Amino acid sequence: MALTEVSCNKIFGGLQKVFSHKSKEVGCTMKFGVFVPPQAEENKKLPVIYWLSGLTCSEANFIEKSGAQRYAAEHGVIIVNPDTSPRGLNIPGDSESWDFGVGAGFYINATQSPWKDNYRMFSYITKELIEIVNSNFPVAEGKQSIMGHSMGGHGALVCALKNPGLYKSVSAFAPISNPMECPWGIKAFTGYLGPKETGAWSEWDATELVKKYSGPALELLIDQGLEDNFLKQNQLLPENLMEACKNVSFPAILKKREGYDHSYYYVASFIGEHIEYHMKNLTK
Amino acid sequence: MALTEVSCNKIFGGLQKVFSHKSKEVGCTMKFGVFVPPQAEENKKLPVIYWLSGLTCSEANFIEKSGAQRYAAEHGVIIVNPDTSPRGLNIPGDSESWDFGVGAGFYINATQSPWKDNYRMFSYITKELIEIVNSNFPVAEGKQSIMGHSMGGHGALVCALKNPGLYKSVSAFAPISNPMECPWGIKAFTGYLGPKETGAWSEWDATELVKKYSGPALELLIDQGLEDNFLKQNQLLPENLMEACKNVSFPAILKKREGYDHSYYYVASFIGEHIEYHMKNLTK
Repeated sequence: MALTEVSCNKIFGGLQKVFSHKSKEVGCTMKFGVFVPPQAEENKKLPVIYWLSGLTCSEANFIEKSGAQRYAAEHGVIIVNPDTSPRGLNIPGDSESWDFGVGAGFYINATQSPWKDNYRMFSYITKELIEIVNSNFPVAEGKQSIMGHSMGGHGALVCALKNPGLYKSVSAFAPISNPMECPWGIKAFTGYLGPKETGAWSEWDATELVKKYSGPALELLIDQGLEDNFLKQNQLLPENLMEACKNVSFPAILKKREGYDHSYYYVASFIGEHIEYHMKNLTK
Repeated sequence: MALTEVSCNKIFGGLQKVFSHKSKEVGCTMKFGVFVPPQAEENKKLPVIYWLSGLTCSEANFIEKSGAQRYAAEHGVIIVNPDTSPRGLNIPGDSESWDFGVGAGFYINATQSPWKDNYRMFSYITKELIEIVNSNFPVAEGKQSIMGHSMGGHGALVCALKNPGLYKSVSAFAPISNPMECPWGIKAFTGYLGPKETGAWSEWDATELVKKYSGPALELLIDQGLEDNFLKQNQLLPENLMEACKNVSFPAILKKREGYDHSYYYVASFIGEHIEYHMKNLTK
């Protein structure tokens, strides 16, 4: 589990770093970003928030465009943001479209060939990456939350819902809330998990997972821009998730943002609010 | 002077727009960014700050990476950021290196062929762009300041020093402070202005211009990261500018930032401080 430091830049008094490492779970070299806030110099153990990015992103988009470092420096929280899929494997078909394969791992564990050996982003995020972060950075173990955007917003929800108690809180910007029912999700799940008839899809869909959640109290903080083209194209379907939550009395908040689209301009506008939300839960 | 809106994204309650237009001064289609803060909805006339970017940048880098919109929204100031050179002209030699030609206009008016007809970024920034901005956005005319980064930091200094009274204040992140004496500047000035012996270079070098400035009181706010590789390689030479200012009693402040490099991570960390500085001068 040796880490190689790819880059290190001082920002807002902390250090934004990028590391690469050989991953067991996904069988290739992976990169991830870590923002270490200035409070780390005081030998404190700090909470950590994981960020999962959306389709086509690498670790770079969030680091360069979210503006999260300012808030993380204020609150004294580490932020870790992994890549969105395995890379460099050259699996036939992994680079033919932007919404499947490279850049589009969907944070699930694939069951179908040729994906099942490497497209194990769920295990990578919820096990291997946590171990790496805990053993290499000044983390207060167990004090972790997770958030994400679009495909990564859904990834955050699934990681939290499938691992009761692992994360203190979860939030999602414009998540693909019900992938079984939208074109992006149907394409990805068919490829990674096989046909719908196998029944496997509902194990990886947040709108289904809230119905059978059992564990410590958890609240879903969902954020959605109302001028989001993918919302209008029915790729996101937050109303389905909210309806499912309502039916089973699962605590959920939907923040609607008038005039905002799907971009990092929207994320940047509200990332401070989300970090504050997670810190409240991480310091309880 | 018709403007075409290229993009529009809501961020921090305001609108980040990009426009394109046909420029008379540089003879091609140019793009620039405009952040219009939420205060514009109140039918107020607002101050404006111009941002000049560094080598290789287009209008996109500042918009995506600086995080300036948050502060501009807080203060109610418009921010305009142009491109760094003419584009699409295919002048022989304009794309052979990253530090000359496209992406490297140096904010001067060239006198040498084949550059002199188009590489007129100084006139573009200080005349044409101001007219366009004043006639298309809710600007309080005359309430304008200028800042920039690296090549654009020097551009901001030159625009202010050659136009006494035009800008209420000027600041620069890691400016190329004395281009006549550094490799980037010598290459650019030789190409755009001819050999040093013509005497033309000193008209476009901030360290020379402070010596003959005559006009309303002006202060130079210079910002410099101390882990900046280009500082170490003697491309920036802020000490030459500060020495020249000291010799002629030109007011100048040098803010040294320990641990910071030349990147937008550094710019993002202090852009809020610069915007606050300009607002103090713009609301006097």
